[in-house]
Amino acid sequence: MTQLRRDPIRGHWTIIAPGRMSRPQDFKVEVVEPPKNGPCPFCPGNERLTPPEVESVRPVPSAADSPGWVVRVIPNRFAALSLTDGADETLLQDAGELLRSQPGVGAHEIVIATPEHHRRAANFSVDHWDTVLATCQYRMDQLSRDPRVKQLLLFENHGAQSGASKSHAHLQIMGLPMAASASQQRLVNARTHFQRHGRCLICDVVAKELDAGQRVVVADDAFVAFAPWASRLPFELCVLPRPHHASFLKVPPAERRRLAAHLRDVLSGLETLFGDLPYNWMLHTAPIHEEEPRALHWHIEILPRLGPVGGYEWATGSYINTVAPEEAAAQLRALRGA
Amino acid sequence: MTQLRRDPIRGHWTIIAPGRMSRPQDFKVEVVEPPKNGPCPFCPGNERLTPPEVESVRPVPSAADSPGWVVRVIPNRFAALSLTDGADETLLQDAGELLRSQPGVGAHEIVIATPEHHRRAANFSVDHWDTVLATCQYRMDQLSRDPRVKQLLLFENHGAQSGASKSHAHLQIMGLPMAASASQQRLVNARTHFQRHGRCLICDVVAKELDAGQRVVVADDAFVAFAPWASRLPFELCVLPRPHHASFLKVPPAERRRLAAHLRDVLSGLETLFGDLPYNWMLHTAPIHEEEPRALHWHIEILPRLGPVGGYEWATGSYINTVAPEEAAAQLRALRGA
Repeated sequence: MTQLRRDPIRGHWTIIAPGRMSRPQDFKVEVVEPPKNGPCPFCPGNERLTPPEVESVRPVPSAADSPGWVVRVIPNRFAALSLTDGADETLLQDAGELLRSQPGVGAHEIVIATPEHHRRAANFSVDHWDTVLATCQYRMDQLSRDPRVKQLLLFENHGAQSGASKSHAHLQIMGLPMAASASQQRLVNARTHFQRHGRCLICDVVAKELDAGQRVVVADDAFVAFAPWASRLPFELCVLPRPHHASFLKVPPAERRRLAAHLRDVLSGLETLFGDLPYNWMLHTAPIHEEEPRALHWHIEILPRLGPVGGYEWATGSYINTVAPEEAAAQLRALRGA
Repeated sequence: MTQLRRDPIRGHWTIIAPGRMSRPQDFKVEVVEPPKNGPCPFCPGNERLTPPEVESVRPVPSAADSPGWVVRVIPNRFAALSLTDGADETLLQDAGELLRSQPGVGAHEIVIATPEHHRRAANFSVDHWDTVLATCQYRMDQLSRDPRVKQLLLFENHGAQSGASKSHAHLQIMGLPMAASASQQRLVNARTHFQRHGRCLICDVVAKELDAGQRVVVADDAFVAFAPWASRLPFELCVLPRPHHASFLKVPPAERRRLAAHLRDVLSGLETLFGDLPYNWMLHTAPIHEEEPRALHWHIEILPRLGPVGGYEWATGSYINTVAPEEAAAQLRALRGA
């Protein structure tokens, strides 16, 4: 018989139903390249094809919007949110209490993570990962100073199946004008636990996971990587700081560098099991003006996209996962022993 | 500027960001066939490849588990939930307050919707759609008599991108031991509205949509089809009874037949715009032992899967939709005028 598990951090339920697809070799997954439309706008030499850069890392000084960068940040040309656009008159305005709306005010930036078109994030050096994370942290800090931005989100989509529209490795930063619904549930769960127990929910989950051991992939004094109890998808992972920290924006350089190593190791471990695979990873950090940082704990979710989700997931917000997280963690631990 | 919209029924927020992809011809979508492993177990003559049938519609009487059926219902061989399996000792049991679990008790049945391997649901006759819906309604009613089943869900996944593992048209019925998280949010929204206003939330939304008109695809005295205010995906649709009804199980035959025509028309309208396309549709009905049926209104959601969702959606439970629902509804209305 299968098992329903409730996720303590996110609040969803997952049916853990091992059997049909549980070993890495059962998944025949290949990254689909997003469609190409002419030259890659993220490649050096094509800087004129993007909006002007807002930031770049240039080991040897060179002009903005010219080659020589190792990481380059630009506004998204097709931004979902904007701090500068005017209102779109073709969109209906608020239709009263039932059909509520608000303007799409916010930020949406692209972090071009490498000048090399074919270099995957899983193969960045730890040094380069650290440069990427430092650049993201800096831009997120800049955006946090705009009073219209209430919450920041950092994520990477890799492969067309994961929603990537370009194959050249890039991250996205969004500055949201509100805490969105699932993040909201996450905040509610964390605050409820804190009010009830006076402790951070994620600190308590980590203690429990370290004690149980079965779902832990790696743990040191700074970070823990584990397969969550109610993993939504096969081989879902969570990476987070072991000591309590609410905000990614305040991670000091030495700790950030250790995160760089963990993130690289986890992504490259997944590549060892599956080859180049589509995935999303998302970094959750406390809302910018958080009154109770003792209740919130920043964390990264990594979602391999080994298959699509269907009507059950869309209808219920619950999941059916054919790989027990204990099994996923064991497979990834075995690589580290090898 | 884009617009954030809150969905009154489901509670999520969607960023409506028209521009990049908004016309049907901008979507280059093709159904991917699920991988084949030997003969199709859903074809007539291959009945021995499935578990014994629990129901079938045979216009001329013939033996169970033999050809001659037009609709056939079987237990899912890879059931996510079961009323008969024993406990799986390899799965951890409940790990206390933080890591909660319960056994995967419930039902998971497959409704093989046609004997013809290549016949798509969008091309069923209205008569055949009615037979399929009547069979589903009957099985759902049977399952509702098991005290362990608390909530029923009916859905179809079409195309590998939508989570289908077989190309032969089939629906799925799940009998859940609990109200799952997103359904739970739906119930909370409906009950809160009823407590506050003494009226059904969906009745109020429908009145508003009929008044506005822009998002309505078709409406008669029995049913309404519309593109929801905060549609999660391009060309998402909702079909529901115009008079208040909490439970699909109680829909009388004459009304069910009209639903058959609407569902066929909506799916075939999407095919006219996009060709054979991957989709999910899901039918939500009131929990089996619902104390306040005046608050709940059964409805069908139709989700064309024209592209994947990415890190933003996974992180936030919110959506970015490049097609305004007003535009989607206008495109579908135009077909009916043609």
